[in-house]
Amino acid sequence: MKACIISIGEELLIGQTVNTNAAWIASRLNELGIETKEIVVITDKHEEILRALKECGERSDIVLITGGLGPTRDDVTKHALCDHFKSNLVMDQQILEDVTQYFKKFGRQITDLNREQALVPDKAEALRNPYGTAPGLWFKEEGKSFIAMPGVPYEMKEMINSQIYPVLSEMPRQQYIIHKNILTHGIGESALADKLSEWEDELPDFIQLAYLPSMGIVKLRLTAKGKQEDQLEKALADEISRLQKLIPEYIWGYDNDTQEKAAGELLKSTGSFLATAESCTGGYLAHSITRVPGSSAYFKGSIIAYSNDSKVQLLSVPPDLLKKHGAVSSQVAEAMASGVKKLFDTDYAVGITGIAGPDGGTKEKPVGTTFIAIAGKKELICKKYTFADSRERNIKRATRSALAMLKKMIEKEHKKRS
Amino acid sequence: MKACIISIGEELLIGQTVNTNAAWIASRLNELGIETKEIVVITDKHEEILRALKECGERSDIVLITGGLGPTRDDVTKHALCDHFKSNLVMDQQILEDVTQYFKKFGRQITDLNREQALVPDKAEALRNPYGTAPGLWFKEEGKSFIAMPGVPYEMKEMINSQIYPVLSEMPRQQYIIHKNILTHGIGESALADKLSEWEDELPDFIQLAYLPSMGIVKLRLTAKGKQEDQLEKALADEISRLQKLIPEYIWGYDNDTQEKAAGELLKSTGSFLATAESCTGGYLAHSITRVPGSSAYFKGSIIAYSNDSKVQLLSVPPDLLKKHGAVSSQVAEAMASGVKKLFDTDYAVGITGIAGPDGGTKEKPVGTTFIAIAGKKELICKKYTFADSRERNIKRATRSALAMLKKMIEKEHKKRS
Repeated sequence: MKACIISIGEELLIGQTVNTNAAWIASRLNELGIETKEIVVITDKHEEILRALKECGERSDIVLITGGLGPTRDDVTKHALCDHFKSNLVMDQQILEDVTQYFKKFGRQITDLNREQALVPDKAEALRNPYGTAPGLWFKEEGKSFIAMPGVPYEMKEMINSQIYPVLSEMPRQQYIIHKNILTHGIGESALADKLSEWEDELPDFIQLAYLPSMGIVKLRLTAKGKQEDQLEKALADEISRLQKLIPEYIWGYDNDTQEKAAGELLKSTGSFLATAESCTGGYLAHSITRVPGSSAYFKGSIIAYSNDSKVQLLSVPPDLLKKHGAVSSQVAEAMASGVKKLFDTDYAVGITGIAGPDGGTKEKPVGTTFIAIAGKKELICKKYTFADSRERNIKRATRSALAMLKKMIEKEHKKRS
Repeated sequence: MKACIISIGEELLIGQTVNTNAAWIASRLNELGIETKEIVVITDKHEEILRALKECGERSDIVLITGGLGPTRDDVTKHALCDHFKSNLVMDQQILEDVTQYFKKFGRQITDLNREQALVPDKAEALRNPYGTAPGLWFKEEGKSFIAMPGVPYEMKEMINSQIYPVLSEMPRQQYIIHKNILTHGIGESALADKLSEWEDELPDFIQLAYLPSMGIVKLRLTAKGKQEDQLEKALADEISRLQKLIPEYIWGYDNDTQEKAAGELLKSTGSFLATAESCTGGYLAHSITRVPGSSAYFKGSIIAYSNDSKVQLLSVPPDLLKKHGAVSSQVAEAMASGVKKLFDTDYAVGITGIAGPDGGTKEKPVGTTFIAIAGKKELICKKYTFADSRERNIKRATRSALAMLKKMIEKEHKKRS
């Protein structure tokens, strides 16, 4: 089964918004064995939409459309669809009820413009939108599907996940496309490619490999395509177990694992608690940990100590350490970790201090210099990193490195004990 | 002048790579008054490329192509271009020299495959590639341009910046395209559209308005197109000053402003210091504030108090408040703000407590219930929000609301004083 994606919106054509929607949709379709043949980005003009609907309809079995379903005047997708399918707008009572409830929930006044959102083409099935007011629209014609969704990413994603994907997954499958991701940390892309070169040469024809580097992490993506799901799964599992033997020390997870989820699960399973003390990362580590649902079960809190005073007063960093070694030093990182561990009475603690930039660097300690300390149940370790990138990347790389160090420490301490 | 962008690559069609190239190119073209009519993403198949070249050539004056120029077998763009333009490959001595030098620089052996990169269609002008081995190709036919570039972002960008943009900017300009963004907070898209309906009706023909909603923020984008740059600038300035009178309470910034930058500038200009106390946002507020370069000049730090104990011990929240009203209450939010203000000895402080979800909600306080308190130099205020969304969105919306409240408070207190 072939798909086309039509992304509608002037913001995509002036470069204001990057088309993340299309990438996300394409990857979900792949899970169903559906290949995206083409992505077309056009502006919200009636005649442009009509042309794209016609052309994409001829080339594919499923056309997924995002954007232009909002309540304002620049939203014309619904009318173009009516035109294309010779359909008329009728009030959908379920959608009207949804829109009314949506405004009630936020205590806002419903307007005529909002009520008009419940007008649905009579040849389409309406898809409910729990996160917004624009319903999705599913047209079926001559065995083909045209599915229009809002352009707001989380509204579109919810609609696909809960209403579109389940239906598409019931359709007869022509092929399987299986992606497996192996997540590595602590080794660069080309060094990894060198280590894996022989293994790569021996991969079977139906498996493809891609290297996806991103800020300290290299994702290895294996893609297998074929008719027999179990055969593909087995071949992928074999290749992954080969990989595990080749680079055991660099693999920290698979597929949608995140470092914070992996660390969190370890903390939970060992009944341990965590606290963090951050300077240069400014809360990004705490945020990463707490964006995992249920993190309150093992995360007690954090001190963001952005000044020397607060490092002394809140984290009990000895003032002479700061004076002698400077705020960005292994001694201070270790004192921060120990201090916050005591303060929150936890089993593990992280202390991070560094120079995120763009200012504040010196010859000895250039921008990107970062010390990360982990206080464990028994041990206290510290590592120095020199990221030397942009502020944003320094913050993220420091956070990723801290999570990798933390995970290693918990594993080590609990291996010893068992 | 109209442009089309053709992005070639399987990685874009399986959702492995987001098409940032097209957005970047489109925004550079806009600076030259060139409108992108369409972006087409296709796989690296000969016949697909031929079709796209034909269709895009018919619809536009400039076709920009990225991807598929590499040395390996799956790179077929050059051959498709030869086919389309009935052109033959000839060795380009300058490019051969560049490729040879490139390998020399890295101390690598040059292969026949690499040498073949210097084969250039005889009807094209070659564009040099200082960061890689694939040259760009510029075809001119019947007043139209077809420009093929490598898909690697920094190779493509360098080629545009140093060889393509300068040439295009010398062409006679047919129009200017100017975008201005007005950033609003605290009002939904449709309510805003209602308020602005009359103003929108009276916008001159050459100015277009778009509503771009995203998590609690609605961006209004005004786009002016025309021959006279100064006239467009003036007309936009006039419309923005009209807007400022219509919705003064909702506008918090323009163009690339962020809320944290706007709040930070206010703190700096008033010589004020800030601290935050976060529960449900788990550090995201502190992270947002500290991702702004130079934020250490006004941000002292934050306490992430994820447990009741830490709220009492670190922020001096009275235990009976927690008992009587619960951790998620206006009383506790206010006590957190006051507590952290005292602790860090600042002029302003924020306290946030809420239920981020997905668990922890009750009938009275469902997931998304959030109390945000701002302690100012004189005042202490608190607002209740009910976001009721996903965990990630609750965290982000709470942070945005807190920044909006903070900014308002600083403005108010410093207006009073002056």
